[in-house]
Amino acid sequence: MSSSMLHASILILLVASFASAGDGNERRPRARELGIAPGVFPPGPLNAITDVAGLKVGHTTVIEGDQVHTGVTAILPHGGNLFQNKVAGAVFVGNAFGKLAGSTQVEELGTIETPIVLTNTLAVGTAVEAVVAHTLAQPGNEEVRSVNALVGETNDAELNDIRRMPVTRVHVLEAIRNAKEGPVPEGSVGAGTGTQCFGWKGGIGTASRKLPARYGGHTLGVLVQTNYGGVLTIAGAPVGKELGRYSFAPPREEETQSRDDGSCMIVVATDAPLDARDLRRLAARAIFGMGRTGASYAHSSGDFAIAFSTSHEARSQHGEMSPRTRTLLPPDALSPLFQAALEATEEAIDNSLLQATTVTRGGRTAEAIPIDPLRTILKKYGTTAP
Amino acid sequence: MSSSMLHASILILLVASFASAGDGNERRPRARELGIAPGVFPPGPLNAITDVAGLKVGHTTVIEGDQVHTGVTAILPHGGNLFQNKVAGAVFVGNAFGKLAGSTQVEELGTIETPIVLTNTLAVGTAVEAVVAHTLAQPGNEEVRSVNALVGETNDAELNDIRRMPVTRVHVLEAIRNAKEGPVPEGSVGAGTGTQCFGWKGGIGTASRKLPARYGGHTLGVLVQTNYGGVLTIAGAPVGKELGRYSFAPPREEETQSRDDGSCMIVVATDAPLDARDLRRLAARAIFGMGRTGASYAHSSGDFAIAFSTSHEARSQHGEMSPRTRTLLPPDALSPLFQAALEATEEAIDNSLLQATTVTRGGRTAEAIPIDPLRTILKKYGTTAP
Amino acid sequence: MSSSMLHASILILLVASFASAGDGNERRPRARELGIAPGVFPPGPLNAITDVAGLKVGHTTVIEGDQVHTGVTAILPHGGNLFQNKVAGAVFVGNAFGKLAGSTQVEELGTIETPIVLTNTLAVGTAVEAVVAHTLAQPGNEEVRSVNALVGETNDAELNDIRRMPVTRVHVLEAIRNAKEGPVPEGSVGAGTGTQCFGWKGGIGTASRKLPARYGGHTLGVLVQTNYGGVLTIAGAPVGKELGRYSFAPPREEETQSRDDGSCMIVVATDAPLDARDLRRLAARAIFGMGRTGASYAHSSGDFAIAFSTSHEARSQHGEMSPRTRTLLPPDALSPLFQAALEATEEAIDNSLLQATTVTRGGRTAEAIPIDPLRTILKKYGTTAP
Amino acid sequence: MSSSMLHASILILLVASFASAGDGNERRPRARELGIAPGVFPPGPLNAITDVAGLKVGHTTVIEGDQVHTGVTAILPHGGNLFQNKVAGAVFVGNAFGKLAGSTQVEELGTIETPIVLTNTLAVGTAVEAVVAHTLAQPGNEEVRSVNALVGETNDAELNDIRRMPVTRVHVLEAIRNAKEGPVPEGSVGAGTGTQCFGWKGGIGTASRKLPARYGGHTLGVLVQTNYGGVLTIAGAPVGKELGRYSFAPPREEETQSRDDGSCMIVVATDAPLDARDLRRLAARAIFGMGRTGASYAHSSGDFAIAFSTSHEARSQHGEMSPRTRTLLPPDALSPLFQAALEATEEAIDNSLLQATTVTRGGRTAEAIPIDPLRTILKKYGTTAP
Repeated sequence: MSSSMLHASILILLVASFASAGDGNERRPRARELGIAPGVFPPGPLNAITDVAGLKVGHTTVIEGDQVHTGVTAILPHGGNLFQNKVAGAVFVGNAFGKLAGSTQVEELGTIETPIVLTNTLAVGTAVEAVVAHTLAQPGNEEVRSVNALVGETNDAELNDIRRMPVTRVHVLEAIRNAKEGPVPEGSVGAGTGTQCFGWKGGIGTASRKLPARYGGHTLGVLVQTNYGGVLTIAGAPVGKELGRYSFAPPREEETQSRDDGSCMIVVATDAPLDARDLRRLAARAIFGMGRTGASYAHSSGDFAIAFSTSHEARSQHGEMSPRTRTLLPPDALSPLFQAALEATEEAIDNSLLQATTVTRGGRTAEAIPIDPLRTILKKYGTTAP
Repeated sequence: MSSSMLHASILILLVASFASAGDGNERRPRARELGIAPGVFPPGPLNAITDVAGLKVGHTTVIEGDQVHTGVTAILPHGGNLFQNKVAGAVFVGNAFGKLAGSTQVEELGTIETPIVLTNTLAVGTAVEAVVAHTLAQPGNEEVRSVNALVGETNDAELNDIRRMPVTRVHVLEAIRNAKEGPVPEGSVGAGTGTQCFGWKGGIGTASRKLPARYGGHTLGVLVQTNYGGVLTIAGAPVGKELGRYSFAPPREEETQSRDDGSCMIVVATDAPLDARDLRRLAARAIFGMGRTGASYAHSSGDFAIAFSTSHEARSQHGEMSPRTRTLLPPDALSPLFQAALEATEEAIDNSLLQATTVTRGGRTAEAIPIDPLRTILKKYGTTAP
Repeated sequence: MSSSMLHASILILLVASFASAGDGNERRPRARELGIAPGVFPPGPLNAITDVAGLKVGHTTVIEGDQVHTGVTAILPHGGNLFQNKVAGAVFVGNAFGKLAGSTQVEELGTIETPIVLTNTLAVGTAVEAVVAHTLAQPGNEEVRSVNALVGETNDAELNDIRRMPVTRVHVLEAIRNAKEGPVPEGSVGAGTGTQCFGWKGGIGTASRKLPARYGGHTLGVLVQTNYGGVLTIAGAPVGKELGRYSFAPPREEETQSRDDGSCMIVVATDAPLDARDLRRLAARAIFGMGRTGASYAHSSGDFAIAFSTSHEARSQHGEMSPRTRTLLPPDALSPLFQAALEATEEAIDNSLLQATTVTRGGRTAEAIPIDPLRTILKKYGTTAP
Repeated sequence: MSSSMLHASILILLVASFASAGDGNERRPRARELGIAPGVFPPGPLNAITDVAGLKVGHTTVIEGDQVHTGVTAILPHGGNLFQNKVAGAVFVGNAFGKLAGSTQVEELGTIETPIVLTNTLAVGTAVEAVVAHTLAQPGNEEVRSVNALVGETNDAELNDIRRMPVTRVHVLEAIRNAKEGPVPEGSVGAGTGTQCFGWKGGIGTASRKLPARYGGHTLGVLVQTNYGGVLTIAGAPVGKELGRYSFAPPREEETQSRDDGSCMIVVATDAPLDARDLRRLAARAIFGMGRTGASYAHSSGDFAIAFSTSHEARSQHGEMSPRTRTLLPPDALSPLFQAALEATEEAIDNSLLQATTVTRGGRTAEAIPIDPLRTILKKYGTTAP
């Protein structure tokens, strides 16, 4: 395995150099810097899923020459042994033209027991294998013989030679090992390296909300892997139409396939103590929130949201047989969290587009959405940078 | 039963006179008249669910004095015997804090065999009973002994003394009998008589889309009964914030309950030949489309969409035992219909608000959204009337 | 309403006299008296759903002349105000050719807030209306404006002139008011008055299990309304084949329709503190348990199980907004309860057949399963009375 | 990769020699040979899933020394290119403590586009990867960039050093390549090599039903991978109790864990032209049929059924955009197929136990169920060999 690891390290270096090259000196803005502030609640300090305390995110970006642009993103609900100390979790299916592994057990038991891994469509098997290996190898898991890996994907086949199956077990393990708290790299990184959204380069985006004290003061964060199409709307402005690039546009119908294709994986985390039933309802709001960006929720899209609570009240010890006392939020208190999920999802998607950088594979270039024209459009429709 | 019928007739008269009084000379615009045209596809000639050929809609508006403002809306997928000649249909659940009756059988069998009736929350039992009676009494149904009535509701309890249970079987039968093709009355009528939306008077709204020939040329129509809250967005403009009336608004948190409460029932009809599996996916897009209006999809909301196809290809004869040949659209051709459902739902909701007229019960007034300020806001955010 | 009540009382008297006439001097045995003891766990003292403390059951049996044999059965999870003090509950769908009302909200929120009412197929609307009226009228519910009535049904149309819609609101209210703890009348009573099962007279049946202390000592009870077909198996013995009456029997294929038609409603109650997620899993075992009786789970069957916990730990106060502490069983401790649900369902179904008495409508007689031949068959296949 | 292939071949040889050693001269009977004939319909000529024309099954049995007993079973709905020529398919979840991959897309689209692979719990990732590689490599799939591998599992960790992750991609590819029509090896082979059932050695089992012409004459076959517990019942006889080995048995409660643990994967195939909605209902009957064997459907069981139709009427060409005409069975004609699924599942499970041979890992021996005592018990309870 050591030669594979070497290989992985080299890839990481390649990524790093690419990233600086791709950006030039341009620093692309996040949504807030352009005055885009969906909804009514304020973001957390990082405006990222990592505002949920203890949660970690790690990326492995896999680029090989001109043909491979793909990667892995791992979300660790907490930094401990997830298998022994499971979090309450749920999945909501928007449109299941997708290969999400592990969802049926999550639905049955309401628990997540591994890192959540996002990658490309054909790498799901590899990622499941890696997550299983990671879990077996963790101290304390010596007796573990059953692992439910939760692995999602979107399809980056236009920018990535996906049939080559370039993502390896090592890439997945790296993403898990490198996961950390703090700011989350966005755009063309990790599982978002080769994805496209609304005809532009998509990728990873994140955002968060911190509820006012009168609604409980909880934090909710969202991370998205955007790879879908529609009629792009940002802060209510019809950006897709203004830029002449949208699904079902009359003169470009031959390109429709690539515009409305694709998928969106959404991960929602909160420190609010919710049970799995209510987490599923929270996950639904993330899917609904995609609508605000102009998503066409096309037939061929794999749109899934995974939600979990990091609260100790919502955790389960592996194999516990005795009654357990928990203090959870009642359903009647959930509406502010639902609103937060809607808002943070919209903003995370905006960030995925704004932070993405142009990627080219052979003749196919997925451009980053151009910032200056976007500013103009936003202004025309009433949104200006602060 | 004759005295009840008399009673019902009187109510209808009351409605008629109220309706003219309520409107004064004011003719309220539909969305298109203000330049609001969500999405990319054109509407049908009526821009109403009745653009789907053969479909009929009927309202009974029930108003008694100051305290009762409620009603019934019936949608007949076709004008024949629905029980003998069932349509393919499906239900998608957005948030099931609601009393939709009949959904489990629709989900199992994929067929709708009665008119779809919308009414208030506490009238569902009465409406089920009436739909059953209607079906038993239809010529050709002399042997029918099992009927799956499909009845949805939203809660109009603020504007309606719902505990009095004012909706009767006769009201339901009237709505079914009066159903007709052509323009659909919108706003404070039928099942929308007492509903509220985003803090304003809501009600019934409708819209349609006619797909371009290159996407099959099918028609899709939507009818909504709006009774929910959130942060109202029209044509991308933050109307709720501009008008200072939205869910979770800091100085009004004590009113939140009434703003985010409620529900939305959506009915989607199409003449495209779809099976029930794909109709369920179509219904999902209607729920997703609510998001574009700023819905907060609150905990206490009953958000359901019902979709059906009027195509003869998608119909079933009652009790058929022999293999049946059908020609249906394949799933890969659905994305334009999904887009149409998103667009028509958004516009139908806009119409429900624009067409609604102010209703007062005792000290509580639900104002119609004011048109002139709305024009100003729309203009500020880039939308002007044609 | 007073004249209706009088009417109802007369019906009850008719029932009483019929019941004694129908039985003659014959006292029909319950399963245990014939040596039938499915599974491994012992029953509770009553071997009835009412072994779950505080739970109440009430029947209204509706018989009018020769043509009407139908009724209502109400199960009250506890004797208090169910709306204010909801129980955790769930529904599992085996086959949804049925009209169960209220299931979507139960699925969304995981709570049951009314009596559970069983009746005939065409009386669901009436029963919903009655349950709503009952709830509105209860002391403490003066502000209630939304009620989710949970009403199930099976179709007794062969023995009952169902199109006459003979069940009234008063019948439903009587069943609720008359509900009590203690032994539960079984067989051709209440919602089982006109049902058939495996070609014999079916009806209401009940059974219970008391778990050994090492599995927590909880009680679980089941009540069934049997109206389905298949190849009857009792205590493993092929009773249907031996008696020459079963679905798909070669010489009788013309009768198949009436044999495999129908439905089974199952209500599972437990005092174990379970949340709604696990109650749904428990309900599934009740549906699975039907298989042990030879059920064919036919296309036209409406097979639903409703499960709830009467534990105070699993209750919710209406409208509670503050975090609530509960002590619930963990999923890993559930297997004995699952086994108990399987066993009690099988025995409850056996009891429904054994306790049922012959009912005749015009030319159609549904015979009670004959006890002496049954004893002989059971003995042949290794089961003898104790 | 060539060294791995060599490795695989050696394993296969080991298997072959073990199999003959394990059996000694004993030829174990199938159910019919003992007089066990569940239900009312006759089996097909092979009484195996391969009675469905064109369907192929392949096993790879993986045994390494004393510690590894595991394997792979592949079911190919037809012998052509499954990705280009998808079959209608569905999944029904009995209890989802299991790692079934691919189910969400099957549920959304109603199609199966790869071989169905069964293996052990920790090999799912490897199997997904292999199925993807197999599909990419098939002639005609040069443009394929998205594959939904359908992979199920049960946990053979007691007889197999599962943490070693001994199943490789090559094993999976071998099972697919070796798949063939004709008789299906049963018992301790393929994915059943290390599984246990009701405290005995379980494994692979299969059975079929051929409907009488009056019900359409269709064939239905079932294949099971049995690894679950309960109170074993064969042909109605309480075999588990008689042999003193069953879940929740008082003196053995400490062993309960290993008895009720586990899972059951069921694959149902038919040549009847059914759409995916009705295939899901058919799959449900397979899960229900487990009940007849005394399954306890324990918390920790992963019980899934996959159903598909091999009919050309129910197939879809990849990427078809034009309306397609199909002739399918109507739902009202399904009951005989449901009955067939119940019967064939019961008999396939019986066969998995009867055909299984004893497997020992270190101190742990899973005995094959002893045939002579079983004959005695069956006779006691009224079943004798023909």
